[in-house]
Amino acid sequence: MEATLSPPPLSAFLRRAPPLRRLLPLSLPPLLLASRRLRVSSCAHGSDGDRIVARPSSELRRGIRENSSKVEDEKLLSLRRLFSRPDVGIDAYIVPSQDAHQSEYIAECLRRRAYLSGFTGSAGTAVVTKDKAALWTDGRYFLQAEKELSRDWTLMRSGTRGVPTTSEWLNDILPPGARIGIDPFLFSFDAAEELKQEISKKNHELILLKEFNLVDEIWNDSRPDPPSKPTRVHDIKYAGADVVSKLSYLRSHLGESGCTAIVVSMLDEVAWLLNMRGSDVPHSPVFYGYLIVEPYRATLFVDTKKVTKEVLNHLTNAGVELKPYESVLAEIESLALKGAKLWLDTSSVNAAIVSVFRSACERYSSQLNNNSTNQSIHHGGPDAVYQVSPVALAKAVKNNAEIEGMKNAHLRDAAALVEFWCWLEKEIDNNVALTELDVADALLEFRQKQEGFIETSFNTISGYGANGAIIHYRPIPGDCSLVENKNLFLLDSGAQYVDGTTDITRTVHFGEPSKRQKECFTRVLQGHIAIDEVIFPERTPGFVLDVLARSSLWKVGLDYRHGTGHGVGAALNVHEGPQSISFRFGNLTALQKGMIVSNEPGYYEDNSFGIRIENLLLVIEANVPNAYGGIEYLGFEKLTFVPIQTKLVELSLMSPGEIKWLNDYHGQVWEKVSPLLNGEALDWLSKNTRPI
Amino acid sequence: MEATLSPPPLSAFLRRAPPLRRLLPLSLPPLLLASRRLRVSSCAHGSDGDRIVARPSSELRRGIRENSSKVEDEKLLSLRRLFSRPDVGIDAYIVPSQDAHQSEYIAECLRRRAYLSGFTGSAGTAVVTKDKAALWTDGRYFLQAEKELSRDWTLMRSGTRGVPTTSEWLNDILPPGARIGIDPFLFSFDAAEELKQEISKKNHELILLKEFNLVDEIWNDSRPDPPSKPTRVHDIKYAGADVVSKLSYLRSHLGESGCTAIVVSMLDEVAWLLNMRGSDVPHSPVFYGYLIVEPYRATLFVDTKKVTKEVLNHLTNAGVELKPYESVLAEIESLALKGAKLWLDTSSVNAAIVSVFRSACERYSSQLNNNSTNQSIHHGGPDAVYQVSPVALAKAVKNNAEIEGMKNAHLRDAAALVEFWCWLEKEIDNNVALTELDVADALLEFRQKQEGFIETSFNTISGYGANGAIIHYRPIPGDCSLVENKNLFLLDSGAQYVDGTTDITRTVHFGEPSKRQKECFTRVLQGHIAIDEVIFPERTPGFVLDVLARSSLWKVGLDYRHGTGHGVGAALNVHEGPQSISFRFGNLTALQKGMIVSNEPGYYEDNSFGIRIENLLLVIEANVPNAYGGIEYLGFEKLTFVPIQTKLVELSLMSPGEIKWLNDYHGQVWEKVSPLLNGEALDWLSKNTRPI
Repeated sequence: MEATLSPPPLSAFLRRAPPLRRLLPLSLPPLLLASRRLRVSSCAHGSDGDRIVARPSSELRRGIRENSSKVEDEKLLSLRRLFSRPDVGIDAYIVPSQDAHQSEYIAECLRRRAYLSGFTGSAGTAVVTKDKAALWTDGRYFLQAEKELSRDWTLMRSGTRGVPTTSEWLNDILPPGARIGIDPFLFSFDAAEELKQEISKKNHELILLKEFNLVDEIWNDSRPDPPSKPTRVHDIKYAGADVVSKLSYLRSHLGESGCTAIVVSMLDEVAWLLNMRGSDVPHSPVFYGYLIVEPYRATLFVDTKKVTKEVLNHLTNAGVELKPYESVLAEIESLALKGAKLWLDTSSVNAAIVSVFRSACERYSSQLNNNSTNQSIHHGGPDAVYQVSPVALAKAVKNNAEIEGMKNAHLRDAAALVEFWCWLEKEIDNNVALTELDVADALLEFRQKQEGFIETSFNTISGYGANGAIIHYRPIPGDCSLVENKNLFLLDSGAQYVDGTTDITRTVHFGEPSKRQKECFTRVLQGHIAIDEVIFPERTPGFVLDVLARSSLWKVGLDYRHGTGHGVGAALNVHEGPQSISFRFGNLTALQKGMIVSNEPGYYEDNSFGIRIENLLLVIEANVPNAYGGIEYLGFEKLTFVPIQTKLVELSLMSPGEIKWLNDYHGQVWEKVSPLLNGEALDWLSKNTRPI
Repeated sequence: MEATLSPPPLSAFLRRAPPLRRLLPLSLPPLLLASRRLRVSSCAHGSDGDRIVARPSSELRRGIRENSSKVEDEKLLSLRRLFSRPDVGIDAYIVPSQDAHQSEYIAECLRRRAYLSGFTGSAGTAVVTKDKAALWTDGRYFLQAEKELSRDWTLMRSGTRGVPTTSEWLNDILPPGARIGIDPFLFSFDAAEELKQEISKKNHELILLKEFNLVDEIWNDSRPDPPSKPTRVHDIKYAGADVVSKLSYLRSHLGESGCTAIVVSMLDEVAWLLNMRGSDVPHSPVFYGYLIVEPYRATLFVDTKKVTKEVLNHLTNAGVELKPYESVLAEIESLALKGAKLWLDTSSVNAAIVSVFRSACERYSSQLNNNSTNQSIHHGGPDAVYQVSPVALAKAVKNNAEIEGMKNAHLRDAAALVEFWCWLEKEIDNNVALTELDVADALLEFRQKQEGFIETSFNTISGYGANGAIIHYRPIPGDCSLVENKNLFLLDSGAQYVDGTTDITRTVHFGEPSKRQKECFTRVLQGHIAIDEVIFPERTPGFVLDVLARSSLWKVGLDYRHGTGHGVGAALNVHEGPQSISFRFGNLTALQKGMIVSNEPGYYEDNSFGIRIENLLLVIEANVPNAYGGIEYLGFEKLTFVPIQTKLVELSLMSPGEIKWLNDYHGQVWEKVSPLLNGEALDWLSKNTRPI
């Protein structure tokens, strides 16, 4: 799947990427806090049915659309009515796309921005004032947003010349000193601080409405139930390391940093640390929870109804206690009262948690001042230490079992893809009318037949012709192209298996590609090969390699506007940090042995066609005859084994080395995948892995 | 010449490289100022003879060595005696290598660190306390420093494990609250601030001894006279733009920034702005001076004895006034009293100037407070604006005349080099015993025959065999190798011509290279070709390209420990910023049309041989069939036209494209350089540009 376009949904891993250590003093001005009462409960109860299991793409987005086809005005009216309630008292309310954990994919019941605005795209921010309503989204979604927003909404085309940011807009339209409300669970602390800074230019105040989410208040009967399916143990044969050793790794970091507790809030980090999986959100096998780890204690805050007996045993054996999801803030307060030094990664931990801890710290120190008897003077008082969590890096460096699982999952996935391409080619040859969605649904069926399949790892990007040029294209039921033999077809898809996560893009032509298409495809392939073959010294950040993926395109004045590679979790999130391969220079994380990264250069010709070729790669030690500098040299091992369409290769542009690469790759594809196939699919594979 | 190893001498352009705009408030704590009396005069009078014109390398370093062979103890004794003088009062004194202008090459009379310590290498810092003396230098100079330092000195091997920095050492050995003296002319303001921060950890105070340099006080009869040769006008046919238009460009930047004056202190910037050249320092055609530009006034602070009638006319026509070099501080003070908003690039402007301005500003505002009558209230009071000077970038982007001059100078330089290589090959064939220095001296003779030749642009690096593996090797008289036909010979040299500056490295073997040498040479050549051929979108910083120079070496676990390219001035400094091509990621300056950059990958096998292949390249608009993103795509045009030894190329490693590159290059070399040659040299060129 394409890697790193401008804004979300990949913001989570991009934002976390630069591993800059920040040690901010506690003396930062605390966020303003509204009066307090615990909330969060609204989405942590009830039962759900099978909302988030694998379903054909064509059904995927109905729920929200049906709801949002109601009259928008009423929602805005109801929302604005709340502004003047005594316990609210705001002039504007910001509704982001996020959940409380900075997740890329979130539960249906938490898609508040989609419910409120009617705009169902994955990225966007809604801002409602007493008389205006505006929605910001990026270039991928301009057309969709235009269709979905009612007249009461103004579409703000982010990244377009002259379009203000949300805070610029608020500073512009509100009289100075306005009160701007947010739900602090839905903003990372860093994001809330930034917002606060921005709006302070106009003397606006940021009001953290922690007790209730205003959209939840108006979202009644139509609101989907919160996810409630049981969690499961991620087998040690796939996880490779047990919970006790993972926690002890984390505790050694705690010890080194002088902290006495850490809050882990990213859902994939919680799942990875506890060797647990869930199905609370689409595409990622995670569950809603916070984990607090102390030297001799670890507590999982989770809807306990999701914890089966097996999971409970598993956690108890690892010394992990359970508490209700909603009680996390109470725990944070009590940590402060115990004088904890709390490790907070403020790029991911939400503003509600950080502000509650800070308030508690302040209360503590004022108590200390008022009552400086001998008793409380012993320990130094609670304190927050703001630094990057060590879990992301530990999770990114895969152990042998995780690598083994990823390899196996990729082979089964390859078998499904070969069967699928064999089928699709025949259908097109027979002039069967298939839409982009039909094709995506068929692919899902082929994958579902594979052992250990759980669901898609992201929304399939199935783009024929000009649609392929839309980098985050997603076919919409009733409004998508047929897949034919007159243009290129780009298919970017992935799956979650019990043992691994896949992400693969292939671009094909079922008829006769043009010379232009062949040249562009070949240059993208050359970039793909250059990344695949590169050997580099340890401590090299991914962005150093990015140019290799582009230089063949640059030679003729072409380029692509996304990164070249993102990290991939092992049976976890399809996008993870901290590493990446990108033309952005901020991410200094070195590529390390055991990391997995996508290799996905592309080229997109507006209104015409799109090309992307994506494999997943494992970082390995390279077999080199020298070791200049006494260090290790690293390289890549392919995880993905599916043919690349040779019809699209312009041989005259390829060097002998590049041709050899392609033939070697196809030799490996045949060797590894043919044992899993038979009949027509096996014939297709044989035909499509022949040397050129 | 090799580009960007760890510390100086390239520090000047590296330090200036990242064009981060800093707008520091004036409220920063001012540096501590010792009492005041103008100095600087010691090096701005007298006459010099021909110390700095082109001389054979073998003579170049005698002056200092002879002086420094005296008993070191006495110098330390005399220096320490000054510590307790009432107007000094310090516990330690730091003597850096710099002059007051952050120059890479400095006048002999300013080589205070070399005089004091006896260590004559180009990079190093001496620190003397009441009972200790230590000298820091980097890996290039460990052996030389060991030989040159007396027993009273401790050698601090910078960059070696466990070796403290100067400030760490001072913090370690001095009791808290010590007074550490520096000559503030010899530190950029940024460097002085950093030092001050570091030593404040131990409550040490930084004492700016602006009135006198303590080494000057003890350096009497033996001190070389200050440079005094006349300056000259750099002809408009080479400069391409007149002084008036250059000043008006600078004034437009002044206007935009709201500043009313700027101090230009880098010698090459002064020379470039004023279309003047000089010969105050070796290797660079610059002269000591400061330039202060105001909206309707420009003042050059220079030893007026160096200003000929022609230069005076030239400056007068451009509206540039002259003042004595020493009066710059007085002018800075009077600018403050006039309420100037002074643009200071604190990465290059020395701490003496900045601190004098800040003190004057403070006096001004306290006067304002004491006497707030109507008169002085009109303007806002003086102020310093700290931001990167716009001159470096303007100077780096060459105009057509500068490009033309560089091209012409390179062709004459190529003719000299071809004659030289032809001669040397014959000498070696005839078993003539030539040392590395003899060879460098002979090369100088060949260059001296070329029209417009002035001097070498840096010390020739002439390294045979194992000496070639020492990246900054410089043959020492009486202690250098013969050049023979049994190993590789690396020759990195350059020249200053009236119309341009050159810098070229070739590596050759006069006998039979080993398989290993051929493989390494070929991989270096492949990196060189990859840089030469790359096309890239505008706004690409140089470091993005660096990997292209290395990936062929990386493939077999090899690498080199220096940057790939540095900027080069047009008839100016051989190293200039702000652009570079380096594995360091800090320099975000984009490569722009008209910039000149070296392309010099290498490989160094310790105790065995060294390889470097260097051409200079001009950034040009690339001729590409597309323009994705509606932007320009850039590429390189070669300036250097001297054969690359094909005997060293391992053909089996070269792609057809790379072989074509080499043959095309040699075709161009023949076409461009053969008209300048005849006889044996022409035959040699014909033989050495034959296609392979």
